[in-house]
Parts: sequence; structure tokens; C-alpha cells
Amino acid sequence: MRKLLVIGIGAGNPDHMTVQAINGLNRADVLFIPDKGATKNDLAELRRQICDRFVTNPKSRRVEFDVPVRAEPTSSYRSTVDDWHEAIAAIYEGLIRDELAQDGCGAFLIWGDPSLYDSALRILERVRLRGNVEFALEVIPGITAVQALAASHKMALNRIGDAILITTGRRLTEEGLPENAGSTVVMLDGKCAFNTLKDKNAVIHWGAYLGTPDEIIISGRLGNVGDEIERVREEARRKKGWIMDTYLLRKPDVGQ
Amino acid sequence: MRKLLVIGIGAGNPDHMTVQAINGLNRADVLFIPDKGATKNDLAELRRQICDRFVTNPKSRRVEFDVPVRAEPTSSYRSTVDDWHEAIAAIYEGLIRDELAQDGCGAFLIWGDPSLYDSALRILERVRLRGNVEFALEVIPGITAVQALAASHKMALNRIGDAILITTGRRLTEEGLPENAGSTVVMLDGKCAFNTLKDKNAVIHWGAYLGTPDEIIISGRLGNVGDEIERVREEARRKKGWIMDTYLLRKPDVGQ
Ligand SMILES: C[S@@+](CC[C@H](N)C(=O)[O-])C[C@H]1O[C@@H](n2cnc3c(N)ncnc32)[C@H](O)[C@@H]1O
Ligand SMILES: C[S@@+](CC[C@H](N)C(=O)[O-])C[C@H]1O[C@@H](n2cnc3c(N)ncnc32)[C@H](O)[C@@H]1O
Repeated sequence: MRKLLVIGIGAGNPDHMTVQAINGLNRADVLFIPDKGATKNDLAELRRQICDRFVTNPKSRRVEFDVPVRAEPTSSYRSTVDDWHEAIAAIYEGLIRDELAQDGCGAFLIWGDPSLYDSALRILERVRLRGNVEFALEVIPGITAVQALAASHKMALNRIGDAILITTGRRLTEEGLPENAGSTVVMLDGKCAFNTLKDKNAVIHWGAYLGTPDEIIISGRLGNVGDEIERVREEARRKKGWIMDTYLLRKPDVGQ
Repeated sequence: MRKLLVIGIGAGNPDHMTVQAINGLNRADVLFIPDKGATKNDLAELRRQICDRFVTNPKSRRVEFDVPVRAEPTSSYRSTVDDWHEAIAAIYEGLIRDELAQDGCGAFLIWGDPSLYDSALRILERVRLRGNVEFALEVIPGITAVQALAASHKMALNRIGDAILITTGRRLTEEGLPENAGSTVVMLDGKCAFNTLKDKNAVIHWGAYLGTPDEIIISGRLGNVGDEIERVREEARRKKGWIMDTYLLRKPDVGQ
């Protein structure tokens, strides 16, 4: 049977690669490299760098492929995602069928960790349900942007004995800071959702391009640094053509 | 100035070690290894194994030390933790002062990732505030038990576009499943808090000794597997003398 490895490659620093991930890369006959188009070429480039540096298996081959762009949300968010995932599933199915021998091993290189806001595992489940190709699956964890953020700010994610909410920019805007978690980590935020919070005494620990040579981190009370982050973010995004940022928020007054 | 590295070593599998962590181990003159006493000797043993396997710097020295046991909660949870952390801060201060040269580099090996339910960073902050030793700090992220859990269950932590709450067994018992997160990850649970949930249709993905040769994973509806997990957990704990488990919970009915 075919074997698929879904490998977390870390969130920007090639040194995030684990021994397990390096071994995984070298077990694969084929490395599948998505290229999400011109604006995010730096990410495809980092995947290539990781392969250049860590792949020592002379039999391994790279296959780059295009991922369709997601349609703009129309009626419902779910159904747009649904169509998009189905389109990618068809592509994955083709790659598996055409590029892998019956007993071959293929690897998907996933940014950060495959379990955090990434659709590869769900899409491979769809491929399995389509019933046209069979495969065994193995998942190898990777360092996430969340951990890169905490490491760069040299801080714990949680307050003592307290919970952590990991959420999206969209949800933060809709729901504000939660009551049931002392710390809130926000990902997938294209719009500086932190500046929609009413409580300007909340503390933010923000980071962009974490783990890369371009890393920027800023922290402080929203009232003091909220606008600065928005400005720095926009400037960096314009200069590089893309940005990825993650941040942690805490309500004021509570220690630790 | 002295340099301290706080290095995440992964959650049980030595192959979780990242390139950055391996390099960190080899930059240190002194590796500080806590030994939390007989019941958890397997963990101290894994730290030693990691050093044996990855440390190639001939100048590096290991210093093992005892961590005081936490007092039973009396008046307030916070104050017990406070006393305990202060006692450990005094130990850390002594280690830094006595074992590290003025320009030496020391490394603390932290289970999983230093930012997730670990007190080393907070305790080092206390050491700094005590004002008796100066040091520069660097944090190196590691694979957490949460990622090991998701990888072993081959699943995403989040539902599509949805939030994730990371919490403790104590809080789950008090608060139940949250409204603002589609997935709840529970750590630090000595008492199978999942069995206190009323909704027996909730789905659990449970794992113990994740990443180790003794790994056990079980998943299903609480009504079907809740008692089984409790039995398996107790049996394993009795046999090995200790257990560490982590799990993910989702309410029923909602897809993905
Ligand atoms: C589609 S999610 C993928 C997350 C990834 N699987 C992980 O484990 O970090 C993309 C989001 O991750 C965050 N992110 C990923 N890499 C980052 C980096 N190097 N710096 C800052 N944020 C990053 C951003 O919030 C971005 O919107
Ligand atoms: C004090 S916390 C430390 C967490 C660690 N810093 C991390 O990043 O995973 C200890 C808790 O982590 C979880 N844990 C750590 N290692 C584990 C493993 N190998 N298998 C299952 N759970 C684990 C358990 O919930 C345990 O109660």
C-alpha cells in the first residue's frame, strides 16, 4: 500500500525541523511542494531550502503543484471551504495516483504543525472517502507559530493554572476577549482585530515573520502599541508583499 | 554575562528534538537536569538519553538537581504555588551562581515546550527579580503533548474556522465544555475529569505516554469509551508508577 507522511516543518526557521521530520523527509520517494502563487513565494522558497538542506536520500524526487485559490465567500463560509477542499482533494488524488508507485512513500510538507489551522489532514480524509486511491497515513508534528511567538517573547502562553484560547481574527472581532481563558492567541487575522477590542488596557504580545530573519515582535498595552503594530504591519506587508502574524492577548490587572 | 537557554525537548519521543534544540544543548557548558524523584524517574531518564544521544560538545557537563515537592493546597492555590516557585527560584539561583562561569552558558531541558504549563520561565523571572545573579535568556520551542496527541490521532485540533481551548482537568470539572471553542484540549488531569461531563455523546480523543514506546490512544463517544479509558489509565498508572495523559473533547453533532 502507498504511504503518506504529513510532516510539520516548523513556522519559519529551518532549525525548527525535528529529527522525526528530517527522517520523514528522507523516507519519502516523492516530496509534494505546494506553491501558493507569487505573493507567498517566500514560503515555497523556505520549503525548497528545507529540502535542499535536510534531504540526503538520493532517490527522492520533488513534485511542485499549484493550489487553487479560494473563492470569495458568497452564501456561506462553510460551502466555499467545502468546494475549495474538494478541488484540492482532486489534485491530491491525482498526485498520489500519478506520482507514487503502488508501494511508494510520499510526503506533504506542512507549515508549522499539521494539526493547527491547516487543511491537509481533512483533505486527505476526503481523498480517502472518494475511494479511488488507498494509502496509509502518518503525521509528524512540527513547531507552530504559537510556540515561536511564545519563545520570542520568552513567556508562557498560560497564566498559572489558567486556560488558553486559540482563535481567529474573525472570531476575536465578533466575540471579544473570552471569560474562560486568561490568555487568547489569535491567528489568521488579516485585519488587526486586536484594535477592535474596547479594553485598551489589555496587553498584547505580537509577532510577524516569526522564526525568520525578518521577525518583528512588539508588546505592550493596546492603548500604547495598538496603532504602532498596525502601522509596522502595513509597512512590512507592503515591502515584502505578504505577512503572517500571530499574537497573544491578556486582560489587564491580572498578574503573571 | 551568563547565558541561559530554556530548551523544549519534546513530549516523550527523543526524535521530537529540533535542530535548534540540539544546537542549543551543544552551546551549553552546563546542562541542568531536574530529577523529580522516584515516581517520575522515566522522565529524568529520557532527559539523560537525549543528552547521551545529541550532546557532542566534549566540554559540556551535566548537573542534576532535586526539585522540591509542592505542598498540598491549603488556603489558596496561588499561595502554595508562590511558595513552591520561590523555593525553586532559590535553587536555580544557586545553580547559576555556583555552576556557571561569569560568561558561561547553561541549559534547562524542559519537557514539551517551555511555554505550555511549565513554570521554568516564570521561575527564572523570579530569579532575575531577586537581583543576585544576572543573565541573558533565550527560549527554544519544543513539540508539546498537544501536538503529539493530534499527530497520533491523525487529526486537526480545530474544527474549520473554529477556536481551541487548552485547559486543565480542574477547570473542565468546574466549567464543563465551553461555548466559545469547538475543541477543548485538557492537560494536567489526574482524575479523568472527562467522566464528569454530562453529555455522554461528546467525543474524546485520549492519549497517554504520547510519543513513547508505551503510548496508548483511545477515541470514541464518552458514553462508549469513558469508563474504558478510566480503567486502562488506572491499570497503566499502577504498572508504571506514573502516567501523563492529554485529551481532546468535542461536542457531538457538529461535523469536522
Ligand atoms: C493557515 S495558518 C497555519 C498555522 C500553522 N499550521 C502553524 O502550526 O503555525 C496560518 C497562520 O499561522 C500564523 N503564522 C504561521 N507562521 C507564522 C510566522 N512565521 N509568524 C507569524 N505568524 C505565523 C499566522 O497567524 C497565519 O495567519
Ligand atoms: C506540567 S505539563 C507540561 C506540558 C509540556 N510543557 C508540553 O509542552 O507538553 C504536564 C502535562 O502535559 C501532558 N503531557 C506531557 N507529556 C505527555 C505525554 N507524553 N503524553 C500525554 N500527556 C503528556 C499531561 O497532560 C501532563 O499532565
